[in-house]
Amino acid sequence: MTLPVEYADVEAAALRIAPFVHRTPVFTSATLDRELGASVFFKAENLQKIGAFKARGATNAVLQLPDDVSAVVTHSSGNHGQAVAYAAAIRSLPAWIVMPRTAPQLKIDAVRSYGAEIVLCDHADRETTAAEVIQRTGAVLIHPFDNPAVIAGQGTATLELLEQVGGLDVIVTPIGGGGLLSGAATVAAAQERAISVIGAEPFAVDEAFRSLRSGRRLAGVVDPVTLADGLLTGIGARPFAILTALGTDVIRVTETSILEAALFHLQRMKLVVEPSGATPLAALRTEPARFADRRVGVIISGGNTDLSWLEAANRL
Amino acid sequence: MTLPVEYADVEAAALRIAPFVHRTPVFTSATLDRELGASVFFKAENLQKIGAFKARGATNAVLQLPDDVSAVVTHSSGNHGQAVAYAAAIRSLPAWIVMPRTAPQLKIDAVRSYGAEIVLCDHADRETTAAEVIQRTGAVLIHPFDNPAVIAGQGTATLELLEQVGGLDVIVTPIGGGGLLSGAATVAAAQERAISVIGAEPFAVDEAFRSLRSGRRLAGVVDPVTLADGLLTGIGARPFAILTALGTDVIRVTETSILEAALFHLQRMKLVVEPSGATPLAALRTEPARFADRRVGVIISGGNTDLSWLEAANRL
Repeated sequence: MTLPVEYADVEAAALRIAPFVHRTPVFTSATLDRELGASVFFKAENLQKIGAFKARGATNAVLQLPDDVSAVVTHSSGNHGQAVAYAAAIRSLPAWIVMPRTAPQLKIDAVRSYGAEIVLCDHADRETTAAEVIQRTGAVLIHPFDNPAVIAGQGTATLELLEQVGGLDVIVTPIGGGGLLSGAATVAAAQERAISVIGAEPFAVDEAFRSLRSGRRLAGVVDPVTLADGLLTGIGARPFAILTALGTDVIRVTETSILEAALFHLQRMKLVVEPSGATPLAALRTEPARFADRRVGVIISGGNTDLSWLEAANRL
Repeated sequence: MTLPVEYADVEAAALRIAPFVHRTPVFTSATLDRELGASVFFKAENLQKIGAFKARGATNAVLQLPDDVSAVVTHSSGNHGQAVAYAAAIRSLPAWIVMPRTAPQLKIDAVRSYGAEIVLCDHADRETTAAEVIQRTGAVLIHPFDNPAVIAGQGTATLELLEQVGGLDVIVTPIGGGGLLSGAATVAAAQERAISVIGAEPFAVDEAFRSLRSGRRLAGVVDPVTLADGLLTGIGARPFAILTALGTDVIRVTETSILEAALFHLQRMKLVVEPSGATPLAALRTEPARFADRRVGVIISGGNTDLSWLEAANRL
């Protein structure tokens, strides 16, 4: 079976985006390694351009567009919107970012700071609003995860991590739409050493877990309530196909475990990690037996948070 | 004139401590470089062992002790206490850390987690209490800054930064007792390229500024009030001698500028930086003309903070 993304696509993406993204550092914690009896390597994509791995996929997708493309558009309330704005600026392309009216001013300002145009609409209207922008401006849609070039770009985070630390037994990333995890799976499958690929998903939005278990792509949870605001979306068709073909497991995590993990990153590792990005550490602690004595790679997906969860975490 | 610390001491320290400390990463911010019209390289010692550069000096000092030393002691409410506890554990030496009764439980727990014994006393009695421990146990005092081995160890942060980024025109570090800054000055003076060395000091505890201006080592400010709780102490005799001989300037910074700098590190760079560690960025913004078009190295000294200043920073 031909998958939507192959290892060579990730390798090509890494070369393509290298001048425009950071080679983010990898951190370890002796305290955590003792706690888990494992060797854990954290790839700090919270220190990536725009504060999240999304810069990789968006940059790869935008740089691959044909020369006659005159503009790009996406709908995102979060990191992908900033990423497309950032990537479009590299090519001096106009970018239209469709955002919900309820988006925090901080995020709107961040997108605007990269020179993009913001189109506010009701959350339910985001796809039709993006379609209107396409109709009106001829912009090309850069989907946040259901796009092979985006998935290949996200895969470069795992590729780099392997280069930086050598062999791994397991890779754990958050799963929302599935771009990051399916990129990781694509890279892992091409290594000589067997590498397990595990997604970390909040119980509150566990449709990726249920989809991969049942073999049927289920709709996203309606009106989900979780701190992990980057993981609200349902799993995409292409990520689902890749993850099903290559074999992936998902560990579900509680909101409390997410808070504790985010606080550990902040207090012990001195890193600002958004709750979505803390789900892998929460997963390690949820099922520690699966990681004992193993070399575990983790993608810390992003650091864009106002820390409003800190008070609740300090009360734990 | 022979100075208490020479460049060769720093080079030797770097080799000695390498197995026990992190080679911390260096970060840049395109946003900040645009703001300042400079190229700024941040050495992230907040990601160092024990969360601060103090691990370097303490480790170098403890590893240099003769074989017949049976224990170490220091008085510190802060990072140096943790650093000595950490360093002593490397050699399996007992460590006594004299701390004020008012020290936050978090800091007491951190010192204890490295296996050290804690002796609580009134702040005013810390030196006599340490002397009692020495009398009773034969422990050797590891002074936080007025110790050549400690200064040489702190100098390795600057040595590494230069290796990592190549030439610099200016190096800026916080100044409290002066160990970090005099270590930086020792390294800078040995480079072919001329490098200015600048300390960042809160107005509220500006006796290093006044001492270096007047050429006379003045006493520390009594009952100082500043967010920069790592910089409360007066400048030490050896650091003063080094900084006077090699030529150093100090930029004083307001509490508001410290808050703004710490918030920039947190929100934009995703790094937890304690207020003391944010003083260099505050200094760059206080006198930007001195840094324009220059390659500027900054030592972010530490990240041990409960973020209690965040609320005030968000209100700015």
